[in-house]
Amino acid sequence: MSITMYHATVPGLVRALNALSSVLKKGEAHATERNIAPEVLLHTRITPDMFPLIRQVQIATDMAKGAVARLAGVDPIRLDDNETTFAELYARIDKVVSLLESFTPEQIDGSEDRDILLKMRTGEMHFKGQDYLLGFVLPNVYFHCTTAYAILRGVGVVLGKSDFIGKP
Amino acid sequence: MSITMYHATVPGLVRALNALSSVLKKGEAHATERNIAPEVLLHTRITPDMFPLIRQVQIATDMAKGAVARLAGVDPIRLDDNETTFAELYARIDKVVSLLESFTPEQIDGSEDRDILLKMRTGEMHFKGQDYLLGFVLPNVYFHCTTAYAILRGVGVVLGKSDFIGKP
Repeated sequence: MSITMYHATVPGLVRALNALSSVLKKGEAHATERNIAPEVLLHTRITPDMFPLIRQVQIATDMAKGAVARLAGVDPIRLDDNETTFAELYARIDKVVSLLESFTPEQIDGSEDRDILLKMRTGEMHFKGQDYLLGFVLPNVYFHCTTAYAILRGVGVVLGKSDFIGKP
Repeated sequence: MSITMYHATVPGLVRALNALSSVLKKGEAHATERNIAPEVLLHTRITPDMFPLIRQVQIATDMAKGAVARLAGVDPIRLDDNETTFAELYARIDKVVSLLESFTPEQIDGSEDRDILLKMRTGEMHFKGQDYLLGFVLPNVYFHCTTAYAILRGVGVVLGKSDFIGKP
């Protein structure tokens, strides 16, 4: 099967987000066992000027939902970024995974040269679809999933890299 | 331009490794400014049972050099994993970037369904080329580059996510 924009986008993002959910569940279980308030983990950071765990999950899911929509040429759904519990983060991830799975190859394939415009706080970013996926979306999603993993590893949650990699 | 195995492999890995080199250089400069022995940073870990900075760099480059070779159907080059200084890590990264750039689209394209066998300490892993790249190589390379970044952020090196993302 030849590589396509759909295959380079959807299966990997679904896998990364499902793995993130499993990583978070191990974090929550660790908090429960140790009588640590879940909010403590959700607000833990690698260092004070990096985002806390909860925001890492929000950004990873934002990147993924934005990717499929923009590559398909539709408006990304809006999420309110108001999660305060592990359960709400699982629900957010599940919602985005369902969204990813709702896109068809026909919607995403052929988007290699689609013009993508991102409006960031720091200004506009312009990409072609393929560069947006490979040079922006994937590194960002893996960055935030890894940072979430590292935050939980740093507080003693027992995780291995296979938890991060997940299953197809 | 349609997405190809070459385009999904080489430019992103080159960019990730060059960005890793820049991140390390900021770490080394930070150590110099603060009179911190470079070895301290090179041996820093997120937590005791994660690999230190030096090993994160070795694994990220291993994954990248293995990817192009295996997708092209040639034996990966061997690296001795004996680096002990920042300068040696830069040289390792440069060597792997040059290697990546020495592969041509003709060598990598069409490898979507190539059988890939990895012999790990934990056993054999079997992939098709496309799944190896998207489900194993890219997540692993970004995992180790992010962990290197997080280690340096955790000790106070001034870095932003754009340092990790790098430039095309």
